[in-house]
Amino acid sequence: MKPSAERLSKAIGHRFSNPRHVEQAVTHRSAGSVNNERQEFLGDAILGFVIADELYRIFSEATEGQLSRLRAALVKRESLAALARSLDLGQYLSLGAGELRSGGQARDSILADALEAVFAAVYLDSGYPSAREVILNLFRDRLTVLTLESQQKDPKTRLQEYLQALKYSLPDYRIVEVSGDQHAQVFQVACVVPELSMETLGTGSSRRRAEQDAAEGVLKALNLG
Amino acid sequence: MKPSAERLSKAIGHRFSNPRHVEQAVTHRSAGSVNNERQEFLGDAILGFVIADELYRIFSEATEGQLSRLRAALVKRESLAALARSLDLGQYLSLGAGELRSGGQARDSILADALEAVFAAVYLDSGYPSAREVILNLFRDRLTVLTLESQQKDPKTRLQEYLQALKYSLPDYRIVEVSGDQHAQVFQVACVVPELSMETLGTGSSRRRAEQDAAEGVLKALNLG
Repeated sequence: MKPSAERLSKAIGHRFSNPRHVEQAVTHRSAGSVNNERQEFLGDAILGFVIADELYRIFSEATEGQLSRLRAALVKRESLAALARSLDLGQYLSLGAGELRSGGQARDSILADALEAVFAAVYLDSGYPSAREVILNLFRDRLTVLTLESQQKDPKTRLQEYLQALKYSLPDYRIVEVSGDQHAQVFQVACVVPELSMETLGTGSSRRRAEQDAAEGVLKALNLG
Repeated sequence: MKPSAERLSKAIGHRFSNPRHVEQAVTHRSAGSVNNERQEFLGDAILGFVIADELYRIFSEATEGQLSRLRAALVKRESLAALARSLDLGQYLSLGAGELRSGGQARDSILADALEAVFAAVYLDSGYPSAREVILNLFRDRLTVLTLESQQKDPKTRLQEYLQALKYSLPDYRIVEVSGDQHAQVFQVACVVPELSMETLGTGSSRRRAEQDAAEGVLKALNLG
């Protein structure tokens, strides 16, 4: 297996018995005639099914329309590209010279397509249960947040439950500044998440509102807002 | 199990361990709040994946665009409705009074949605391999014809191979009429398929062309053209 395929294999937590599939999955059409376009077609279908199945089970009260919208948000190009970046997929891609020069390895469409192709590669290599596992592992955080959102929880609660799910310590909220007149005070609060090396600021007309705002900032920065 | 669910179960060749799923699958939203809308969302995704997977394997030389078009043709509403009719799905449906009066059990959209819901019911009842089997059994003829078409075989050959796949006897071609001048003759040929109780007419400037035309007519009448 090429070193890049080996590293990608570790990143997605799947050991390929035949590396040919994953090597093809990271090959953009600009790099050769054996490329990931057909796999992308297959991977898109696998992904659509795995996510539909999961949403169907989690959201037992959701209507068909709500399920469709939830799925569309999860599998849209930008979401897939963000997941691809979390795997450093760009650095494993084989691109033609032109695409490389124009920064193709950072482009949303190329990353999203390659990620779908990788799902197909796992499927072709090891079957449906393995592909499902890889996909759900990758989408777990987003599915968790959707679940919490669907329970209409506030940002602080969602952030707390998200961090607990990862076994991380809870965020620390600190008042940074209180300004304004007595009857129109503005609170500025920092939300610090040590394990994620993150700190966001939130403002509001009460300490609690400023904390919610800061927590929302962390969720957004994690692409979970 | 309700008699209707029992008969449907036989028609698709799947014995449900829990008839609840299939009873829900044949319940239109006009007939109650527990209906097949959510299952349709799930079934559509299963179907999309099973067909994508099959096309990916059969058409190893097809481009992504060709695969997408093939799938779109197979799973479009009219195709699904035709398959639903081949199962007599309309007669098993639970519809509200209004839909019944307006002939909802014969409507393409209602039949297609219910068929997708039935696929989901099989999946929920018995898992992915069973759902895949039911879907592929139902699509087998269409997939066979697509395969033959992709090999660019002519209508007579495709019809012959289709009938052979079903273990039916071969079609009989008979000249019905030859008309026109010596140098501009028009042949009319009948194609008779005994087991399907079908007879079509074809015309052409040669006997062979008229036979191809008649064979094409049978394929079209079978929704396979």
